[in-house]
Amino acid sequence: MLAAKSTNITVAEHAVTRDERWLANGHKSGILWFTGLSGAGKSTLAMALERRLFERGYRAYVLDGDNVRHGLSADLGFSPEDRAENIRRIGEVANLFAQAGFIVLTAFISPYRADRERARAIAPDFFHEVHVKAGLATCESRDVKGLYAKARAGKIPEFTGISAPYEEPLAADLVVPTDRMDVTRSVDLLMAYVERKLAL
Amino acid sequence: MLAAKSTNITVAEHAVTRDERWLANGHKSGILWFTGLSGAGKSTLAMALERRLFERGYRAYVLDGDNVRHGLSADLGFSPEDRAENIRRIGEVANLFAQAGFIVLTAFISPYRADRERARAIAPDFFHEVHVKAGLATCESRDVKGLYAKARAGKIPEFTGISAPYEEPLAADLVVPTDRMDVTRSVDLLMAYVERKLAL
Repeated sequence: MLAAKSTNITVAEHAVTRDERWLANGHKSGILWFTGLSGAGKSTLAMALERRLFERGYRAYVLDGDNVRHGLSADLGFSPEDRAENIRRIGEVANLFAQAGFIVLTAFISPYRADRERARAIAPDFFHEVHVKAGLATCESRDVKGLYAKARAGKIPEFTGISAPYEEPLAADLVVPTDRMDVTRSVDLLMAYVERKLAL
Repeated sequence: MLAAKSTNITVAEHAVTRDERWLANGHKSGILWFTGLSGAGKSTLAMALERRLFERGYRAYVLDGDNVRHGLSADLGFSPEDRAENIRRIGEVANLFAQAGFIVLTAFISPYRADRERARAIAPDFFHEVHVKAGLATCESRDVKGLYAKARAGKIPEFTGISAPYEEPLAADLVVPTDRMDVTRSVDLLMAYVERKLAL
């Protein structure tokens, strides 16, 4: 089986190049890796940006907890090892989407620098780290689902920002300060970044 | 962390629907799951079909050993459990690509019916089983990389068709008899299937 697999690995090459895909799409591919605290607005911005990109003719797709944690990573728990493996798989899938010509937006807390750097290393030419930045106080005051309250009460172990660390990006490619910008202005900022970096 | 993840899971919904993607692309999405013996022509046909689809304006992408076994499944070996997990992950990734509007072509031996049925169950509306069918004698006589010779000599354990089973599809959605058809005619057959099933 190993040998049979390795046959598949070398017999045929992709007959459509990345450049051909870019030309057909009218833009380069890329990975916008959103990172930030729970409640900072990662998923909201990713979904809103996906919509904006779609309307402007870009090929874009969001990877988030909904379509990854219930599927590809359904076998993983929340131990440090499983969290690292989850981020690794997302990095690999994001790379496949980028190879296929997409602008892929990933919306996961991804609190550890080392995990994010490993994701970057999988696809260094595509990777853009986007820090969706709101202070803990802001995120906690939003507390849409009451999770911070539960975490403060000790009912949720290892909650990022409360009882587990969030390691801020040291040199994010883009910072979106959602404590000072509404969704529309935040998406404007993201869209300008995409046009600057990924337009042909 | 569990709770933080589940926040992401429910906060935001995809703002671009599948139907909108289909309309923009001009075709439905789907998974063409190529299965067959080593040497039957899975990768060759998948790559040739990807090219044909691209030239006709379809969004298509091949998942094969090259981009999966070296990346997403790089942590997996070739034990029965690892092989099943490899096929599961490919099924999940294929589903993500289909959700994003693609026609995804998967080129793996995938010798076990149960594994293929699990892949179908992940995305039943998208899944099309394509049996790339050539007899063992034909595949063995092609033996592009000399793997069958090695397997016969006992140098490769668990080689599908020789020392490990290949469970033929019982009711494939499409059969491509590559022992009687050349690549061009085979791709014609596949293209006609795609146009019949996935055109809008």
